[in-house]
Amino acid sequence: MTKRSYHPTDGRTGNGAASDAIRERRAAIEDLGAALRTLLQVSASTEAGADEIRLAAAELRRVTGPLAASVRTRAQQPSADDLLGGIRMYNPVSGTGSGLAPPVDAEVVDGVVVGTCTLGLAYEGPPTYAHGGVSALLLDHMLGYATTASGHPGMTVELTTRYRAPVPLQTPLRLTGRVTEVLTRKVIAHGTIATAADPDTVLVEATGTFVAIRPEKVRALWGSGP
Amino acid sequence: MTKRSYHPTDGRTGNGAASDAIRERRAAIEDLGAALRTLLQVSASTEAGADEIRLAAAELRRVTGPLAASVRTRAQQPSADDLLGGIRMYNPVSGTGSGLAPPVDAEVVDGVVVGTCTLGLAYEGPPTYAHGGVSALLLDHMLGYATTASGHPGMTVELTTRYRAPVPLQTPLRLTGRVTEVLTRKVIAHGTIATAADPDTVLVEATGTFVAIRPEKVRALWGSGP
Repeated sequence: MTKRSYHPTDGRTGNGAASDAIRERRAAIEDLGAALRTLLQVSASTEAGADEIRLAAAELRRVTGPLAASVRTRAQQPSADDLLGGIRMYNPVSGTGSGLAPPVDAEVVDGVVVGTCTLGLAYEGPPTYAHGGVSALLLDHMLGYATTASGHPGMTVELTTRYRAPVPLQTPLRLTGRVTEVLTRKVIAHGTIATAADPDTVLVEATGTFVAIRPEKVRALWGSGP
Repeated sequence: MTKRSYHPTDGRTGNGAASDAIRERRAAIEDLGAALRTLLQVSASTEAGADEIRLAAAELRRVTGPLAASVRTRAQQPSADDLLGGIRMYNPVSGTGSGLAPPVDAEVVDGVVVGTCTLGLAYEGPPTYAHGGVSALLLDHMLGYATTASGHPGMTVELTTRYRAPVPLQTPLRLTGRVTEVLTRKVIAHGTIATAADPDTVLVEATGTFVAIRPEKVRALWGSGP
């Protein structure tokens, strides 16, 4: 993976040249990401009493302190990332270091990006089902991944999400993304969400239009480029 | 707020009949939500070393333990919530108890839902900007809120998000949502994302179609109804 893209194709592997120190730090970040995700799902489902919850909040603030002592600014990329190598530890959909991400685990199978994830109770919209916006978030990622994997990375300009049936929580899901059309600078991609148990019944689908970023636009957005 | 809706119109207020115990528990949940959100943003931006990160992960697992001792199942609603009263403490967009939510704070102003939020580094997609799917997530919420506030709550059937310019992180944002058309069972709504500093320059916009849920569908999805 050497293509420049803002859609990571893999949050965990790649970069054979990484030093042992970076590898060790990435493993620690994944460990923290996993602990954060468990905490987040538990916090959205705990029936603990007010005192216990207040105590947990105080302890979290204490744990946060040392981590906050050295933080990057918005203009700095995480030192554990390898942007051009496709490693984004904190991507909010696929990042194994992200507390927000389910995370989605995806790979290219016969030209189609196939992903898996399970959404915990923290993603709840209508009772017992995932928030509709979360489905759009997952599908934007799958489509972006597909465009990058096809060799036509770009940024989303339009995303249409169609909801056929609600997406159940705590249920293994199967996601897909594939490029359906490549125009001069525009790429159209399509993606789906189904349960892993019934992959042929599409619950949500999306069609997206992605556009390659012109060099002058890259300069306008990121100065000399990210 | 007594309308049945799965789009909360306010995650914090309402329910005048709530007991002191519920009020106290909601305040504790908000406290934990705030601590979680800070932790999440810090964890996505920390440059702490591997050992420090591993230690934080271990401490988080320890804090999670007591909270995990008593958790609801997917079929149970949080006891702190008041679904019909519009209180959803853990909504992934607006819930003040949610670690995932920015959270979006919104209210109806002259018939338009106006919301504010600031996205931290955990929401990063392209470097220094918000993930495109996060914008769709925010707008789905704003449109759902607008349909509920207009007296026509429903579930999203289609959402089209158009990206005009990237959404900056760590920058106060202004969101809007308004109903543009009410048909028999269908409601069309439109929403925008801009910065608070330049509210007239739309960065992302969305149009959504929402459909009222028939009673037989409510029974099919939730049995006797949520």
